[in-house]
Amino acid sequence: MQRIYFDNAATTALDPEVLEVMMPYLTEKFGNPSSIYSYGRETKIAIETARKSVAKILGAHPGEIFFTSGGTESSNTAITAAIRDLGCKNIISSPIEHHATLHSVEYWGKQDGLKLSFIKLDETGHVDMESLRALLAASTERSLVTLMHANNEIGNLLDIKAVGELCKEYDAIFHCDTVQTVGHYPLNLKEINVHFISAAGHKFHGPKGVGILYVNENVSIKPMINGGGQERNMRAGTENLYGIIGFAKALEIATARYEQDSAYIQDLKNYMKSRLETNIEGISFNGDCNGRCLYTVLNVAFPKTEKTEMILFNLDMAGICVSGGSACSSGANAGSHVINSIGTNLNQVPVRFSFSRHNTKEEVDAVVAKVKEFI
Amino acid sequence: MQRIYFDNAATTALDPEVLEVMMPYLTEKFGNPSSIYSYGRETKIAIETARKSVAKILGAHPGEIFFTSGGTESSNTAITAAIRDLGCKNIISSPIEHHATLHSVEYWGKQDGLKLSFIKLDETGHVDMESLRALLAASTERSLVTLMHANNEIGNLLDIKAVGELCKEYDAIFHCDTVQTVGHYPLNLKEINVHFISAAGHKFHGPKGVGILYVNENVSIKPMINGGGQERNMRAGTENLYGIIGFAKALEIATARYEQDSAYIQDLKNYMKSRLETNIEGISFNGDCNGRCLYTVLNVAFPKTEKTEMILFNLDMAGICVSGGSACSSGANAGSHVINSIGTNLNQVPVRFSFSRHNTKEEVDAVVAKVKEFI
Ligand SMILES: Cc1ncc(COP(=O)(O)O)c(C=O)c1O
Ligand SMILES: Cc1ncc(COP(=O)(O)O)c(C=O)c1O
Repeated sequence: MQRIYFDNAATTALDPEVLEVMMPYLTEKFGNPSSIYSYGRETKIAIETARKSVAKILGAHPGEIFFTSGGTESSNTAITAAIRDLGCKNIISSPIEHHATLHSVEYWGKQDGLKLSFIKLDETGHVDMESLRALLAASTERSLVTLMHANNEIGNLLDIKAVGELCKEYDAIFHCDTVQTVGHYPLNLKEINVHFISAAGHKFHGPKGVGILYVNENVSIKPMINGGGQERNMRAGTENLYGIIGFAKALEIATARYEQDSAYIQDLKNYMKSRLETNIEGISFNGDCNGRCLYTVLNVAFPKTEKTEMILFNLDMAGICVSGGSACSSGANAGSHVINSIGTNLNQVPVRFSFSRHNTKEEVDAVVAKVKEFI
Repeated sequence: MQRIYFDNAATTALDPEVLEVMMPYLTEKFGNPSSIYSYGRETKIAIETARKSVAKILGAHPGEIFFTSGGTESSNTAITAAIRDLGCKNIISSPIEHHATLHSVEYWGKQDGLKLSFIKLDETGHVDMESLRALLAASTERSLVTLMHANNEIGNLLDIKAVGELCKEYDAIFHCDTVQTVGHYPLNLKEINVHFISAAGHKFHGPKGVGILYVNENVSIKPMINGGGQERNMRAGTENLYGIIGFAKALEIATARYEQDSAYIQDLKNYMKSRLETNIEGISFNGDCNGRCLYTVLNVAFPKTEKTEMILFNLDMAGICVSGGSACSSGANAGSHVINSIGTNLNQVPVRFSFSRHNTKEEVDAVVAKVKEFI
């Protein structure tokens, strides 16, 4: 059976070109980057070159980029630091954040002296800017605003610049979970008032187990993981050398291919949307599907029936990989907190199709045919 | 120039056999282990198989093994959890712990209501058990004892069983940093009263960026990194799939080769010690070199002279990789906190030679000849 992988928002295939540049570090170049001898300096230089490249692409200084074990660790670090080191006592987030953010702010929200509020969302799931302003204005304490750049389930894009400006007005700290956009959209951090962003390599054909935390040079924080002096005392632990090399290479490739890949994938998404509309009755789309939305994600609301409730299972049987909620919670099968929070249409079975440059229109045709067959 | 790598306590070369089992997961088997479709389940099963294998080797239950990003994260998690979730208010550690432990307990020791004490060490750097008992007995609060199984600089081995028994007597929580012993010594956790152990794959020819935290089933803790439900809600973040596969394979190989490798490496160490004693005047050895000590580590105290102060530099120039302090702090060049803490002989230049199964007596001869030439 030929597998069709339409779950690229969960994770992507490692690009063979990325693996190729990782290979020397998986074999002969294994020296500890913190060692003082030249063999260690060689790997140290490789890490610093990777850092410079990532920084340049994101419009940041190398000193603002810290390598971590992934998006989750990065978001946890940013949120912890904003509260512990930057005096934020008023936490503002949204109910449709990734669990990495949601469970962190819930944890902190329970601590003495801290307040957690969720902003309102409009019908398509976008952040209501007036609600954000009201929450910022209502607090006498410093606020931490943590909002995602793109939602991993419905694809909605935040106006990160506008949120940054609003945060600036209220001297709030702004953390943006950019896990779904780094490597997918050009970002120029020089032009955005953001203090922290999080990213993960495996979302754009880079390796798993590695991510970055961007920390704006104007804020000074302490590490969440203490130990050796790695990452300029900001993230202890022997570096995931090949992961770091791979992260940078994947981001370089994504950046070079941005124009062509984004157009190609957007076209795939549009094609799938129109094929579904033509072939399947009664469907609609979750999120701001035609508007400010990831070109990689199409979240379809199937009307709830006995047949559509089996759709994930049946697609799986047919070798088609898609997901209901986000990957990290789908095991639990508790439904999607994102769809439940938007709540305009609960009588649905949501299915997220998410694409990469490796997908084709033939695959879309095959998937739509299977969907039609099943319901 | 032929490189000689005698810094295996800092990091080791990835075993090609380990890389081989990682490769499928670096290429076609990239599915997110948390996905519900069979393609994700395939990688999920691989992770659970790895967990079972690790658990079996360590005499633990699979439910007690959690994969992390490395030894540092594991130790930080254990220490955080013991204090935050298990009510430990009296922290007992030693001045020669790795910075992953030391900087964590220092951080916590500054928090309100917590007390941090360091046990006494004897002349060779071993933990004074009476000092430990006294500190345990003196506290009315629950204690956390965090002591390393083997010191990464001088190699001293802790009597982990005896410390466990003492902790049991006082209902203390015991975390043991086993980063230098997992993969180097058989450990049967069923027979040791320990609540947490930390390990890192790259110390025994496994991959960097992955480690484990063992959490005894009798204690119940919360995660340090919040988010998705990975690792049974104990460590959020998309799994470092190939890292986990590699960790297990490296541990399996190390376990199978234990008898032969440990004898071979011990012999190398003894050989180097005797060659140095014969050829270099005035040297001595740090730690309990002939007693309870890692077979992988030989820490030589060269009398401080203009020439010995240049020895690390000159060995490097000759392509020989060794280290002064631990790798993670050697960049700082602030001297070794371990040697400084033992403090019997401060007028020395300490050099750590650390071996693996890839080293040979010919290499030892070449290194001793170079050392002789330089001083
Ligand atoms: C004894 C000891 N503990 C902890 C660590 C930290 O492990 P890692 O750097 O892999 O996080 C190391 C090695 O760096 C070590 O030797
Ligand atoms: C929006 C978003 N944030 C955070 C994460 C967490 O990233 P990771 O699982 O790599 O830690 C993910 C993906 O899992 C995501 O999609």
